[in-house]
Amino acid sequence: MNTVLTYGTFDLFHIGHLRLLERARALGDRLIVAVSTDTFNEGKGKRTVIPYADRAAIVQALKIVDEVIPEESWEQKRDDIRRFNVTTFVMGDDWAGKFDDLKDACDVVYLPRTDGISTTELKQSMALLGQIIRELR
Amino acid sequence: MNTVLTYGTFDLFHIGHLRLLERARALGDRLIVAVSTDTFNEGKGKRTVIPYADRAAIVQALKIVDEVIPEESWEQKRDDIRRFNVTTFVMGDDWAGKFDDLKDACDVVYLPRTDGISTTELKQSMALLGQIIRELR
Repeated sequence: MNTVLTYGTFDLFHIGHLRLLERARALGDRLIVAVSTDTFNEGKGKRTVIPYADRAAIVQALKIVDEVIPEESWEQKRDDIRRFNVTTFVMGDDWAGKFDDLKDACDVVYLPRTDGISTTELKQSMALLGQIIRELR
Repeated sequence: MNTVLTYGTFDLFHIGHLRLLERARALGDRLIVAVSTDTFNEGKGKRTVIPYADRAAIVQALKIVDEVIPEESWEQKRDDIRRFNVTTFVMGDDWAGKFDDLKDACDVVYLPRTDGISTTELKQSMALLGQIIRELR
């Protein structure tokens, strides 16, 4: 059995998240997703719109996801790989090369992000801005 | 086998959507979700941030959802109930009483929306607004 592990924030869950998880899942038989906690994000100076419990619940609710674990530190990856007998570690290619030190523990794969998702996000932000303005009137 | 059917837009998928679908699913053994198409929404003067294909894909990706169908007209509900042998028709209680005419075809249940979700949405909009402003600087 091949176990795939990936990490992410999954704030405002969208189709780009789903497509990346689907492609990660296709690399094995079981997909474990580590979702970054609010405390971990704070330490990075990052604030999500949606709190951890809700981000984790939505990822856990997906057919292709077998297990969700919290991402609480930069250092936990090697432990997670051992603990879950991970065969493939997957990240988006915005992280390309950054986790090559894990190659002695399992396969390390960087998947391309879906084209157009940042455009979609921009459109989304713009449309929401319009919506907010309409609602404030 | 009890088949549950519900209708919705599921724009910017969030925890309130998931909780409502979970409670709908708990009323039967199979859950069919009709997702409103962009054309149907346009006819109601409603514009979503996320296009139909992506909204439908995310709902379809949920463990608790067995099938997604398009919602294309107000009149299709009775046909859908017959076509899928639906035993329970579920809507959020913002629609309370509006579909009582279907009670001759199956059970009609109005579920309360999760408390605090509109607050969350407001906060979400506000946080996104802040994010957009930061990104535009």
